[in-house]
Amino acid sequence: MTGVPQVPAHASPAGPPPLALTMGEPAGIGGELSLAAWLRRAELPPGVSFAVLDDPARLRRLATRLGWSVPIVEIPRPEHAPARFSAGLPVLPLGMAVEAEPGQPSPATAAAVLESIDRAVALARAGICAAVVTNPIQKKALYEAGFRHPGHTEYLAELAGGDATPVMMLAVEGLRVVPATVHIPLSRVPAALTVERLVTVGRIVLASLVHDFGCPMPRLAVAGLNPHAGEAGSIGREDLDVIAPAVAALRAERHSQVSGPYPADTLFHPRARAGYDAALCMYHDQALIPVKTLDFDRGVNITLGLPFVRTSPDHGTALDIAGRGVANADSLMAAIGQAWRIAAVRTR
Amino acid sequence: MTGVPQVPAHASPAGPPPLALTMGEPAGIGGELSLAAWLRRAELPPGVSFAVLDDPARLRRLATRLGWSVPIVEIPRPEHAPARFSAGLPVLPLGMAVEAEPGQPSPATAAAVLESIDRAVALARAGICAAVVTNPIQKKALYEAGFRHPGHTEYLAELAGGDATPVMMLAVEGLRVVPATVHIPLSRVPAALTVERLVTVGRIVLASLVHDFGCPMPRLAVAGLNPHAGEAGSIGREDLDVIAPAVAALRAERHSQVSGPYPADTLFHPRARAGYDAALCMYHDQALIPVKTLDFDRGVNITLGLPFVRTSPDHGTALDIAGRGVANADSLMAAIGQAWRIAAVRTR
Repeated sequence: MTGVPQVPAHASPAGPPPLALTMGEPAGIGGELSLAAWLRRAELPPGVSFAVLDDPARLRRLATRLGWSVPIVEIPRPEHAPARFSAGLPVLPLGMAVEAEPGQPSPATAAAVLESIDRAVALARAGICAAVVTNPIQKKALYEAGFRHPGHTEYLAELAGGDATPVMMLAVEGLRVVPATVHIPLSRVPAALTVERLVTVGRIVLASLVHDFGCPMPRLAVAGLNPHAGEAGSIGREDLDVIAPAVAALRAERHSQVSGPYPADTLFHPRARAGYDAALCMYHDQALIPVKTLDFDRGVNITLGLPFVRTSPDHGTALDIAGRGVANADSLMAAIGQAWRIAAVRTR
Repeated sequence: MTGVPQVPAHASPAGPPPLALTMGEPAGIGGELSLAAWLRRAELPPGVSFAVLDDPARLRRLATRLGWSVPIVEIPRPEHAPARFSAGLPVLPLGMAVEAEPGQPSPATAAAVLESIDRAVALARAGICAAVVTNPIQKKALYEAGFRHPGHTEYLAELAGGDATPVMMLAVEGLRVVPATVHIPLSRVPAALTVERLVTVGRIVLASLVHDFGCPMPRLAVAGLNPHAGEAGSIGREDLDVIAPAVAALRAERHSQVSGPYPADTLFHPRARAGYDAALCMYHDQALIPVKTLDFDRGVNITLGLPFVRTSPDHGTALDIAGRGVANADSLMAAIGQAWRIAAVRTR
């Protein structure tokens, strides 16, 4: 891990601290998304700036290849990003050059991918950057280079000190969902749901609604597992035996409103969504179907439970279309805007 | 079961045959929905008429209680409904009076509930009515009176001769979904999914898309079971071992396009929906979350695989609000319109 520049946050020469944007898999769409986000900077909230931890030469080649007019502004320290942001895309150079063929991930770039993440996290933890926004990575290429973490989020939790419980929230305009279980087979979901797990996740979500989203009295709606939330036990017992006790335990939290379990199919239409700040779901698709049905292009992945703000676009490296300039930057734009808003709430 | 009036369909004095609307649970919202649907008849497709199999005196009392101006037009035979439809709500009287207190279902009305269904089915099977549209029933009250079928749909399948395989489709504007498993605990879904089951259901859906929805080359998208459709087997095997072979078998059907398994969370946004005529889903909430998220009030339940057309609103008896005139008739209106359009496709 590269050292953190020893400059306190209040030394920033202009405006609030920038966001730290990671390179992501250089054979994927991350580079062109970073360029596109800078081109679309007028759509971001006022005052936003970001710096990408990447190889400036690589981004320059990519901009030339795409015919995009994006000046690459190499900056020595993130504090320069706000003042230089209007001149071009601020880049904090990595310690190594990055050569990548679009669509062809290679273990040779794994060290650069990790350096970008490590330094972004260090900058955010030191308060020099306001948040980390991560471009997608390709796990397979990292594994071949010796990476041993189950995924991006688990790696970030490790960087956070190891005792963090990272919780994935997906957000689009008008809906925030948190799956209590994520990338496990559906057949293993019922056994993975315990009162303890649901209470732990629920508490992290409630805390985040207060501290990240500015809800003084957060409202958490909890979905059932079975059709019709089990219909009083006649279609499965988990809703009664596991979810309801977890809801009861969470209801004891002060300054919050926790309710459920609700039949999941009744929980995501506009009137229902108006009744809560986040929905705690039992499994991946229960949470992601409504989010992606409502707004496929602008989903943001927010990692709760870390000691720094982290968001990411809700898509992968898209190797099949990398290097062509056709990738949609909507989700990264939304991730940048969301990170900025959370950082503003945290520091207000 | 009451006998079918011995009048051939071509003897209808005016227009296409009417729809047969069942009474449903008389302590629920069915009666006021029937009245409301007649009041809102201008919103229905041109030419639609329906007759409700109910107790005319009960409906008259209900209209008076609600202060709604709905003349109850008692007709001796369904063939009179089209010509009398503009004068009032056509009612085919049941063989018994129905006394019901809103919100208080009673086994005493079970015989009338079943007579209404039996006669509607007989009229549709005889071609005297174009389709059956069922108001919701309360199973518990029927069970107490000796009813022995698992549900409304199974009872209709029994009336259809016993060898029918009823398949539930849910439809809103722009989306038709079919859950391959329905009211079973989520933990039992993986084992309930077999290649044979999926192929059987898939064939019924493809046939319905052709004959009921007028798709000459029906496009069926099949959802996966696990997150990311199992990610090539790394998150569960069912997508590879069960769903993919079923898709392969269905692809061999002539004059159709069957594809999948797709990650379920990517299947329901507008661009994805434009690519298929129906989605075959693996379990209840996978199918119903997108439908009810997109349009909570206008979902229609269509039973495929029966020898007659049957639709119903996608809600229950709503005992808690019955008799107050506040129930939303949108779903019944949609069910009537959908039944009419299917009947028109079937007979064209």
